This record gives sequence, structure tokens and C-alpha cells, in this order.
Amino acid sequence: MRVIKSIKSIRTFLKTIKIKNKRIGLVPTMGALHKGHLSLIQKSRRENDIIILSIFVNPKQFGPKEDFTQYPRQEKKDELLAKKEKVDIIFYPSVEELYPKDYLTYVFVDELGEKLCGQSRPNHFQGVTTIVAKLLNIITPDTLYLGQKDAQQVIIINKMIQNLNIPVKVKTCPIIREPDGLAMSSRNRYLSSRQRKEAPILFQSLKSAKKRIQKGEHRSAALLQMIQSNIERNSSGRIDYLECVDNQSLNPLKKITSSGMIALAVKFGSTRLIDNIEFKIK
Amino acid sequence: MRVIKSIKSIRTFLKTIKIKNKRIGLVPTMGALHKGHLSLIQKSRRENDIIILSIFVNPKQFGPKEDFTQYPRQEKKDELLAKKEKVDIIFYPSVEELYPKDYLTYVFVDELGEKLCGQSRPNHFQGVTTIVAKLLNIITPDTLYLGQKDAQQVIIINKMIQNLNIPVKVKTCPIIREPDGLAMSSRNRYLSSRQRKEAPILFQSLKSAKKRIQKGEHRSAALLQMIQSNIERNSSGRIDYLECVDNQSLNPLKKITSSGMIALAVKFGSTRLIDNIEFKIK
Repeated sequence: MRVIKSIKSIRTFLKTIKIKNKRIGLVPTMGALHKGHLSLIQKSRRENDIIILSIFVNPKQFGPKEDFTQYPRQEKKDELLAKKEKVDIIFYPSVEELYPKDYLTYVFVDELGEKLCGQSRPNHFQGVTTIVAKLLNIITPDTLYLGQKDAQQVIIINKMIQNLNIPVKVKTCPIIREPDGLAMSSRNRYLSSRQRKEAPILFQSLKSAKKRIQKGEHRSAALLQMIQSNIERNSSGRIDYLECVDNQSLNPLKKITSSGMIALAVKFGSTRLIDNIEFKIK
Repeated sequence: MRVIKSIKSIRTFLKTIKIKNKRIGLVPTMGALHKGHLSLIQKSRRENDIIILSIFVNPKQFGPKEDFTQYPRQEKKDELLAKKEKVDIIFYPSVEELYPKDYLTYVFVDELGEKLCGQSRPNHFQGVTTIVAKLLNIITPDTLYLGQKDAQQVIIINKMIQNLNIPVKVKTCPIIREPDGLAMSSRNRYLSSRQRKEAPILFQSLKSAKKRIQKGEHRSAALLQMIQSNIERNSSGRIDYLECVDNQSLNPLKKITSSGMIALAVKFGSTRLIDNIEFKIK
């Protein structure tokens, strides 16, 4: 496994790879790797000749009052984990190289970026699409691996790739959860032990809502009400958003008629967790 | 020469080309080819194995009150001209394919896009950077050829390419002019014969300003005043903007100390012409 830190070096390396017509998989992360990330790496490992793990805590996707400086960084630990999963290259670019002083260019996906998480994180998705566009241009992988935990991110990145005709395939991997159902996240470590005990209520509520859908409850309002009171009664979590939406347009669904998703963000103290569940009825 | 109209077909064609490691040059245009475009094609012809001329009147770079529907389209004539210049491929995508109904993604270069032409054409450069990003993703050329007549466009596209790490070289070709100095433009045909006779005053004024700079006049205000009165006294043109700017940041220069450019847009009736001249002292 090689650790490459500059754009020039990774391009030089990739040139030798591309000549040999190898399949390249990219797993973009902000580091602080957990089993969710590892599942992406494993899938990529099975499907490609060369796999590149990028680790970059992207300042452009954090708001001014968000946890950019506090976001966990654990270079050495991540390297060990990546090596175990047979990553070929860790790409570790610097903020200075990716965003030089006079940086001015952004990619944004209109409308979709303003919904759900976008409401409380105004420039978040513009930061995400910009860094992903940059990484795709630097690495030009055959396939990009994304995790379903960030469902809105997956929808937005897919839209960007289609709209800008970026020549890459996208594969999405299911959410990996702790044994008690909490979705794996680098931010879970911020939870106090009490909050950690409460947090599984998010997935439990989503799961029971899905069961209700399958049993015939197709009115979103009733489902969301059930989730909300479930969370509020059983935890200290404060709901940031809780919506039942179409999983292409992210528009709210009043009534469930086919497929969609329930997505939520809940704050435990200053730690904001997200989760979601997809459903499909016929 | 082949005329290719769909993204899928050009990608299939390019796959066979790329395997052979050929150098690909892209000349992006909106058609209505004139000698300015031809100079780009000729330069590209000398420097590449395969040259692709894209012709696409890009709706996203026209304002709602601008001349999108009136913009000249002359498919057959352009094909003849391209064939003469030994273009390999004309890429003629459709609006429907490049901007499907639910299109949402845009690339923009902050600040630079709001200056000069951006003041009277608010979303113009966002439309330009978006279509150029798309064409670069579809064609992935080695080199992109741009004309210096659209100086601000050149600066903005270069910035986008650097900032988004798009793997392409950019070459800029000098402005091609009519014998009387008028910069070649697809919009010149809209001028009445009286306006056509007046229009060379733009370049004449820019040229005499440059001479004055070389003779030691380094105060922008004096230079711009000279150009303005020259245009206003000798033509029916109404100045849209007239500025002396740094040719990286496009910030106005009060005093000329090294290099820069004077750029202008002038309306003759409803026809808006642009021109510019670069200078460098010492």
C-alpha cells in the first residue's frame, strides 16, 4: 500500500496504471474509518484491480459553526485499517493543494441541495459536489463507491454525475449498523454514554415506521408523527428534520404510493446524527 | 469527416481513438463559424491527431431577453467550412440530450463571473462553465482551444480547469479581425451597414489607448475617458462597460504598473459587441 499526498504524484502513478487498462475503484472518505467505510472498500476490492481510498476532511462542506476543526483525524489508525483491507493507494491531499488561496470554482446541484440536510447546512452539498468533482477529475476512476447512510449525498452526487456527463459508474452500499441498530458514523464517538444508549431509537423508529407502511399505513403524517413521538419520548434527541420523501426528487410525499424514503437528522447535545430507511410498496 | 449527434456515439468513437493513444483537440463553438473559429481549428489541426469541433448554441449562457432563438444557425455551411479545415468530427449534441428536463447541476466561478460582461449578463458565465465542463467530460480532449476575443471567458474557463483539476491543457488564440479592425464575431452580421461602418472605432480606440500606455500614460481614468469619448463622438454605440483590469483577477486597475487589459462591450442598436486589448509595460 502506498500513501500519496500530492496531485502530481497520484497522476504520475495513475498513468502507469491506466496504460495497463486496470479497473480503478475510488472510495472517497473523510477518514476516521469505521465498518461502513470498510464495507465500501471491501466491495471495491472485489470489483477492481486498483483501489484508491481518499482521505480528506473537506473544509468546504462544513459550515462556519460546524465541527471542521474537531472532526476526528486518525491518520495512522486509518492506514492500518486500509492496509488490512488491501487498499492499493491512500490519497491524502492537503487543503492547501485542493483549495489554493484564490480558489473560486464550485459545482452545485440546484434544489436537491437545499432540502433535508441542506436546510440546516446551507452550503454543505455544494462543498460535497465540488470535492467529489475534483477527486473524480484527479483520479478518473471507473467506479465510485458511496454509502447509503448519506442518502441525500448519494442522490445529489448521482445527479451531478449524470448532469455533468462525468464518465464514472456509481455503486452504493447499504448502511452498516452497530449491533443495536445505530448507523455507523465517525460522529458517534462524540456521544455521551447516555446519548449513545438513546441513539438506537432513530433506527428503531424508522424500522417500525417501515413495518407500518407494509401493514398499510400510507399517510406520511401519521408515520412521521409516530417516529417523532417515539424519539421525543424515549431520548433527549432534538429533531432537526424528519421527512418522508421521493427518493429521486427529495420532494415530500403526502401519501405513499410506490417507493420513497424516510430520512431524519437528530441532535443529541451538539452531535447531529442522520439516518434513513427506504421503502417500496406495490 | 463525421458528424456525430449523440453522446453515446461520440463516446464509442472516442474509445477506439484513445486506445491508439492519439492526441485529441477540442474546439468548442456555437457554430456560425468565422475566421476566428477557423484559426482555432487550424491551430488544433497542427497540434493533434484528431480534432473535434463541437457546435452547440448553449441556451444556459443566454439571458431570458437575449438572442438565443435568433442566434445564427447554419449547419450545412459550417460543415463545409469544417471539412475544408480537415476537422475529424463535428459534435452536434441536442439541447434535449445535454439538458434533460430535470437538469439541475451547474459549475460557477465566483467573483470573476460577476465582473465585466457578467454585470449585464448575470448567469452567462455559469452557463459557459457548465457547458464547457460537460463537453470536457464527454470528450476528454488533451487540449482545449479558446479565442482571446472572449477574454473574460478564457480567464474563467482557465480558472475552472485549474480549480476543478480537470486534466486538459488550454490554448488561447489571438483575436482575428476584419481588415478594418473589427473583431470577428458571429453577431457582426446583425449590424446595419451604418453600424458596421462605425464598429471599427472599438478597436481603433483600444489601439490608440495602448499606444498612449506605451508612451507613458498609466492612469486608467484618462485612458478610459479617451476611449469613451472617441466611441461616443464617432459612432452610435452605447457603452455597456469599459474597464481597465488585471488579467487574472479582473479587478479594475487605477494605475497601470505592469500588465493588464482594457475590455469593453458596446451596443449598436440591439447588437452587443465585445473587444479587448492586452498591454504590458516594462
